[in-house]
Amino acid sequence: MEFLRVTYRLDGLDGNPAEIEARAEAIAFEQTVEVPRAVAMREPFIAREIVGRVESIERAPDGSHRATIAYPVATTAFDPAQLLGVLFGNSSLHADVQCADFDPPASLCEALAGPRAGIAGLRELTGVRDRALTCTAVKPMGRSPEQLADLLRAFARAGIDVIKDDQGLADHEFCRFEPRVEACLAAAEQVADETGRRALYVPNLIGTPERVFAQLRFAEKRGARAVMVSPMLLGLPTFWELCHRHASVPVLAHPSHAGALRYAPELLFGKLLRLYGADAVIFVGYAGRFGIPRPTCAAIAANLRGAWHGLAPSLPVPGGGIDLADVPEVVRFYGRDAMLLVGGSLQLEPGMLLERSRAFAEAVRDASA
Amino acid sequence: MEFLRVTYRLDGLDGNPAEIEARAEAIAFEQTVEVPRAVAMREPFIAREIVGRVESIERAPDGSHRATIAYPVATTAFDPAQLLGVLFGNSSLHADVQCADFDPPASLCEALAGPRAGIAGLRELTGVRDRALTCTAVKPMGRSPEQLADLLRAFARAGIDVIKDDQGLADHEFCRFEPRVEACLAAAEQVADETGRRALYVPNLIGTPERVFAQLRFAEKRGARAVMVSPMLLGLPTFWELCHRHASVPVLAHPSHAGALRYAPELLFGKLLRLYGADAVIFVGYAGRFGIPRPTCAAIAANLRGAWHGLAPSLPVPGGGIDLADVPEVVRFYGRDAMLLVGGSLQLEPGMLLERSRAFAEAVRDASA
Repeated sequence: MEFLRVTYRLDGLDGNPAEIEARAEAIAFEQTVEVPRAVAMREPFIAREIVGRVESIERAPDGSHRATIAYPVATTAFDPAQLLGVLFGNSSLHADVQCADFDPPASLCEALAGPRAGIAGLRELTGVRDRALTCTAVKPMGRSPEQLADLLRAFARAGIDVIKDDQGLADHEFCRFEPRVEACLAAAEQVADETGRRALYVPNLIGTPERVFAQLRFAEKRGARAVMVSPMLLGLPTFWELCHRHASVPVLAHPSHAGALRYAPELLFGKLLRLYGADAVIFVGYAGRFGIPRPTCAAIAANLRGAWHGLAPSLPVPGGGIDLADVPEVVRFYGRDAMLLVGGSLQLEPGMLLERSRAFAEAVRDASA
Repeated sequence: MEFLRVTYRLDGLDGNPAEIEARAEAIAFEQTVEVPRAVAMREPFIAREIVGRVESIERAPDGSHRATIAYPVATTAFDPAQLLGVLFGNSSLHADVQCADFDPPASLCEALAGPRAGIAGLRELTGVRDRALTCTAVKPMGRSPEQLADLLRAFARAGIDVIKDDQGLADHEFCRFEPRVEACLAAAEQVADETGRRALYVPNLIGTPERVFAQLRFAEKRGARAVMVSPMLLGLPTFWELCHRHASVPVLAHPSHAGALRYAPELLFGKLLRLYGADAVIFVGYAGRFGIPRPTCAAIAANLRGAWHGLAPSLPVPGGGIDLADVPEVVRFYGRDAMLLVGGSLQLEPGMLLERSRAFAEAVRDASA
C-alpha cells in the first residue's frame, strides 16, 4: 500500500507525550474517517486501508511539535480537490495546527502530473538559456489597454524578458480583457520587429471557471504564448484543470490570496503549486515589503527545482517589491534558474521608465554572468 | 460612486498614529494599484476612481487596530474572483493583517446574488416549518454504497431531516460517486414509502470544475433535491458558478479547508459564503471539538440571517462534534432558523444507531417546541 505522508506543526502543547500522541492521532482520524476511533476501528477494511497512522512526532527547537501522518493514498481518490481535503481539510479549522510539509508517493505525482513546460519550457519560449530571467508587470489597474501597451513597449525595448499583466487586471469596464490582450500582444510584436527580440507577454486570467477558460481560449487564439492566474483565488482544483485540461501554453502562478492559507510557505509555494502544474511560481521573497525569512525563500526555490518523482521543475519567481539596488544580490541568492519580478518601482520616476527598466535587465544580465 | 468597505485588523503596531495611518494606506494601495503612491496619484482617473481610501482607524480593546478602507466598487469588476483579490489578495501575504469585515454596496450584492433557496427554500424542501432542523452524515470514508445506504435508512427512520454525505466521500475506487448517490436516494425513497416522511439526502460533490458539474448533473437527474460542496476546497469562484450557473437545487457549504484562511470566521462563514450563494452554511461551533467562542458563533448566525441588501438568508448549520447531551442548549442558542449537524457520535455505540438518531431528532423537536 502506498502512503501520502503529511507533517503538521502543532502549537501550544506542553510536552506531555500522551497528550501529543492523542493530538496527532486526532488529526489522523479527522482527516480521514472523522468518526470516533471506536467506530472506525470496528471495521477491518477501514482500520487498515483508510485511517491515517501517526508515524513520528518530533519536538522542534521552538517548542512546537511536528507530527508526520501517513495516509493510505487511495483516500485522495487521486483527485486534485480531495487531495486538499486529506491534506488539511477539517484540521485547518484547528487554530493550533499548521500544514508544514507533505511527501506524495510517485503514483500521486503521476496523477497530478505537475508542470508541463516548467523551467525548460520557459527558457525555450524566451530564448534565455544561461542566466536568470527578468519579469515585470503592466499596471496599475485604471489604465486603458493603449496605456498598458505603451508601458509594455518600453519594458520590451529595455530588454525585459517576461512582461505580465498585474494580477489586479480583470475584465473591467475601463479596461476590457480582450482589447487589453490584443493591444499588448501587438505591442510585443511591434518591438520584436524593431529589435529582433520578442518579450513574452503574459495576460492575467481571472473569474469563475467558465470565464477563465474562455479568456484562455481567446488569449491562445490571439497568439499569447503563456498565461498567468492566481491559483489561491480561483481554487487549486480549478487551477489543475486549467493546466491539464485546457491550457496548451505555460502557466504562471501568482500568490494573490495565498497568504490567507495556514500552510507553510515552502509547502504551498514550493510543492503544492508545482504538483498542481505551475510552470513558474511567483512568491514574495526576503527582499521587498513582505519580509519573508531567507531560509524560507531558499526552501521554496529548492522545492520548486529539486528532483521529485520525475516532475518537471518550476521556475521560482521572487517578487514583492525588490528594489533595483538589490537585484545583483537577489540573483546571487537564487542562482540562474530563477526569474526576478520587479514591478511598480520601474515606474517610480516620471520619464525614467525606459532607463530604469534597462537598468533592471542589465543588472540581471551582469549578475548572472 | 459606490464603495466596497473592508475592515482589516492590524496587529503589532505600537500606537504611533503616523505609522498606523501609513500601514492602512499601504493596504489601500496594495489592494488596488499596487504601485508606489506617487505613480498612482499622478493620474487623476486612477487617484479618483481606483485607489482605495482609508476611512477610519480604531483601536480595539486588545491593542490591535481596525482600519476601514473604501474601494471604488468598479475595481471588483463585479466578478466573484476579482472581488476576493480586492478584499484580501496581496494583503493576505502580510502576516500582521486579518480581513475582519466587509460591507458590499447593493450593486455588488445584486451582481453576486447570494442564496437562491436559502432558509425558506430548505424549509419548503424538508417540510419543517416551525423548529430547528436536524442533520447528520453518512460516513466514514471506506464504507460501500450499500453500507452507507443502510446507515441512511436508519437515520431517516429515526426522523432526521437532512442526511448528507461526509465531505470526505469522493469518487473513490472502493465507493464510487454514482452508485453511492443512487443507493442513498433509493434508500431515502424506501423509507419515505414506509413512513410518509422523506429525508433530504444531500450528496457531496468534489473535484475539479468539470467533474463537480458532471456530478451535479448526475445527482439532479437521479432526483437529488440538494447538494453539498466545500467552497474553500473548490475555490469560491467555482462555488459561485456552481450555485448560479449550474445548480437548480439548493447548495450546502461545508467548511473543509476553510480554517486555512486568515479571514475572521464571522466574515467568511457569515458573509462571504452567503454572498456567493450558499443556501446553508456548515461551520464548527462552540459545542464540540473546535472550541470556537460563543460570540463568534452568534455573529456567524446573525450575519447569515440578517437583512442584507435583499439577499435571501442562509441557514446556519453548527456542527463539529456536538454531543447529544448538549443538543437542547444548542437549539436554544441558535433558535429555530438553524440546522444542527450531529455526525459520528450517532454511530458511537454498536447496535444503538437508530436509538441515538431518534434521540437526536426528538431532542431538537422538544427544544424547539
